[in-house]
Amino acid sequence: MSGKQTKTKSSELPTRADDYPAWYQEVVNVAELAETSPVRGCMVIKPYGYAIWENIQRALDTRFKATGHKNAYFPLFIPKSFLQREANHVDGFAMECAVVTHHRLKKDKDGQLIPDPESQLGEELIVRPTSETIIGESFSKWVNSYRDLPLLINQWANVVRWEMRTRLFLRTAEFLWQEGHTVHADYDDAERETRQMLEVYREFAETVLAMPVIVGRKTEREKFAGAEHTYCIEAMMQDRKALQAGTSHNLGQNFAKAFDITYLSKEQKQTMAWTTSWGVSTRLIGGMIMSHGDDQGLVCPPAVAPVHVAIIPIRVKKDAEKQAAADYLQPLIDSLQGQAFQGRALEVEVDYSKGSPGAKHFTYEKKGVPIRVEVGPRDMEAGNVVYVTRLGGEKITVSRDDFAGQVLGLLAQIQQDLFDRAKAFRVEHTQVIDDRAAFDAFFTPQNADQPELHGGFVRGGWCGETPCEEEVQGSLKVTIRCIPLEGQGELSEPFSGNCVACGKPAKADQPRVVWAKAY
Amino acid sequence: MSGKQTKTKSSELPTRADDYPAWYQEVVNVAELAETSPVRGCMVIKPYGYAIWENIQRALDTRFKATGHKNAYFPLFIPKSFLQREANHVDGFAMECAVVTHHRLKKDKDGQLIPDPESQLGEELIVRPTSETIIGESFSKWVNSYRDLPLLINQWANVVRWEMRTRLFLRTAEFLWQEGHTVHADYDDAERETRQMLEVYREFAETVLAMPVIVGRKTEREKFAGAEHTYCIEAMMQDRKALQAGTSHNLGQNFAKAFDITYLSKEQKQTMAWTTSWGVSTRLIGGMIMSHGDDQGLVCPPAVAPVHVAIIPIRVKKDAEKQAAADYLQPLIDSLQGQAFQGRALEVEVDYSKGSPGAKHFTYEKKGVPIRVEVGPRDMEAGNVVYVTRLGGEKITVSRDDFAGQVLGLLAQIQQDLFDRAKAFRVEHTQVIDDRAAFDAFFTPQNADQPELHGGFVRGGWCGETPCEEEVQGSLKVTIRCIPLEGQGELSEPFSGNCVACGKPAKADQPRVVWAKAY
Repeated sequence: MSGKQTKTKSSELPTRADDYPAWYQEVVNVAELAETSPVRGCMVIKPYGYAIWENIQRALDTRFKATGHKNAYFPLFIPKSFLQREANHVDGFAMECAVVTHHRLKKDKDGQLIPDPESQLGEELIVRPTSETIIGESFSKWVNSYRDLPLLINQWANVVRWEMRTRLFLRTAEFLWQEGHTVHADYDDAERETRQMLEVYREFAETVLAMPVIVGRKTEREKFAGAEHTYCIEAMMQDRKALQAGTSHNLGQNFAKAFDITYLSKEQKQTMAWTTSWGVSTRLIGGMIMSHGDDQGLVCPPAVAPVHVAIIPIRVKKDAEKQAAADYLQPLIDSLQGQAFQGRALEVEVDYSKGSPGAKHFTYEKKGVPIRVEVGPRDMEAGNVVYVTRLGGEKITVSRDDFAGQVLGLLAQIQQDLFDRAKAFRVEHTQVIDDRAAFDAFFTPQNADQPELHGGFVRGGWCGETPCEEEVQGSLKVTIRCIPLEGQGELSEPFSGNCVACGKPAKADQPRVVWAKAY
Repeated sequence: MSGKQTKTKSSELPTRADDYPAWYQEVVNVAELAETSPVRGCMVIKPYGYAIWENIQRALDTRFKATGHKNAYFPLFIPKSFLQREANHVDGFAMECAVVTHHRLKKDKDGQLIPDPESQLGEELIVRPTSETIIGESFSKWVNSYRDLPLLINQWANVVRWEMRTRLFLRTAEFLWQEGHTVHADYDDAERETRQMLEVYREFAETVLAMPVIVGRKTEREKFAGAEHTYCIEAMMQDRKALQAGTSHNLGQNFAKAFDITYLSKEQKQTMAWTTSWGVSTRLIGGMIMSHGDDQGLVCPPAVAPVHVAIIPIRVKKDAEKQAAADYLQPLIDSLQGQAFQGRALEVEVDYSKGSPGAKHFTYEKKGVPIRVEVGPRDMEAGNVVYVTRLGGEKITVSRDDFAGQVLGLLAQIQQDLFDRAKAFRVEHTQVIDDRAAFDAFFTPQNADQPELHGGFVRGGWCGETPCEEEVQGSLKVTIRCIPLEGQGELSEPFSGNCVACGKPAKADQPRVVWAKAY
């Protein structure tokens, strides 16, 4: 080891326990994921953050195509009148949005640019907050016969929702997402699709992002504006708040009626279709950060990590030293790059830059690289490498060839450990509560220094009434995240007690619901 | 062959010779590539068209990453004042654009949505027509030291330029593109990058799109607004007009100065940086259509074809017949899908749908699928398949296994034939002209029925004066497409005669330039 590189100081991040929001912001910053822009509420996604998004896209796109969906692209702009066609949708979506009113700038007498009054649009255009309406218009032309169904389309796009209070990845005015839009012959097929895509999201979140989720149905109050009903996946962040990580909507015939999506049935009858939509966004990156990050910085699940293995050669100032290291490492690099984790060839970064090995370790730690490897002259003599995983523990010395043989196992173990750790955290901070006083106490911050820190998720009964939800949100900032679907063990157990909020009998045929503070 | 399927009628498209613009529009329509939308000037890219774009993206993205570029994402909106900072840029780009003036809608007393007057923005936002300015602002923060250079970034995005006369793919208000943006320590490095990306575009256009291009430099009049100089690739369409298929700009220090992109040099001096930008768009799909399409419809180069091989089983009405065909085809499908052309696994579509084999042949022909295969009961008995390529010729009978062994060779031959055919067409319709009368005649339509049909490209001298270009454009709608760069054989030959337009001596040290009508 070089004499200069003992500066292995740990991160100077705020800790999660001391100031969770500041910790989050600083992880985004030091891992070089994104930054604010001069445009209010819009973010710049930096290369390292965008590489994570590309990996998310690739994993999802493969799954969408495997389930029969095709990508297409629809206009960025929506005529104002389109938003008005579906009554609930307009209330939910048409309000806080970017409105285009002119199509030309001109210079005024002082040479300053102004919107040319003569270019005012006859009808304002809205930058899409979501595309049900503009896609509905196309679908009404694409669907003619039962033979055209199901129509299974996905779009990767940017959308804009004017937000006053923004946070990088979690809530920004512009964000990137995918939106699936499908058309079906009947309710059952639409429902099957809605549930199928929910399951795609669950499997993706848990397998790729290592983020355990609860699968459930939204209450009437929380469902998508214009949907019959909405399903979701909900994850617990390390501040014990919930993050809605994906939604899948059965839109019933609401948009089909508004946009006249009909088909000629086998029986030659003109029939109203049924539609669905479903989406996830760059918000998933925020969820990943808050699921796995630690006080040293980002922790990237190997399945989406832009770099799987960072290699730090030691003592490579002179050209001859650098060449010796390069020669020693090349067979290892070749072997690593020839292997794939979850279908993606391993990405290896070798860092010959100036700077101490300690500082480099610190950099790759902050960026959440799953495995760091260092190789010094004595390791080379012995045919070894030294590695450490992002989950910590001792540095381990193994032969260069053994490391190449073990790397996929190490990555799989990290991926699994991250999932297990996050799941254990959620279980630890989820409590069954049937009593309002205990419920209030659970959601009350435990000390003044940590105004946000509270118990976590409550599994409690619910009467089924919207005013009850409103009261709880008003008094505690707590909402019903979802009504868990079947097949999730105790989460799905039938419940026949009372509403934890108002004490009235819980709604029949539903398990305890999940109450939580949320992003 | 089934008795019902003799309807192998050829397409009912307008022919290229009769009405080229109508032919183009109808190819886009029958191949299901794109359609107009209710939003003025914006297109809907349909799944088959979008699949071509995905293949273009993949091929380019691989090349960008191989040359050291990383993807990132910047805001959709540009504050009006940013456009104003670079004087030439504002004149070229800030005019016909979508202007966002409000951030909220509200319902008026009749329940109609209107922009909420209280939500008027203090500074209007422009939907990006190109991102030099907003990216320049980020780069001024990202670049601090010579160690940060070169900074090599690419963005895949949608952009909007308000266009009055639009044509699908070729000119639309919103389109999809990539824009590279890089920062360099000195002029030479910026120029090296500008030329490198031009070469990436040339190689991509010729290898992947099978579209021969002339590589050249734009005149001062035609260069990008804000650039020092602009390079381009120009292709000849089958109506003999030019299509600018990609551009690469050396921006000098214009944007660096406007956005204060400076770095501390090795010598510890604060130094102004140099920048470049380069882009191609969904316009390439228009170029592909017009380079290779024929009177039967689209012809897809195999490298970007969404489907390489369409298989049409014959006599598969009964379940048992269908099963027998499926059993016979499965080994072939497995073998095809296990092979890759230009790095992409072969896409195979087997069409068991209702409809005559003739009608199916016709459909895949219109969609430009490179190879169609049919398999009937007698072929199955003999262990054969029958194929025909999109370039025509006889149906050929070969054994099933031989076909699997030959398919990559067939695709490579189609790819090469398309390039050769397009190159021969360009050569045939490019003429050296040094005399103004001949020049005028060459660009004059040959008969009233075909008002657009003219000679093609002229290689002729140019004096180097802008007014001369303006005169020619005014009188003939002809512009200088480029000044060819070195290394292109006779295109690059030195020329010391006179300007074909005005008769003055041609500018020194430049070959004959390429004059043409253009999209």
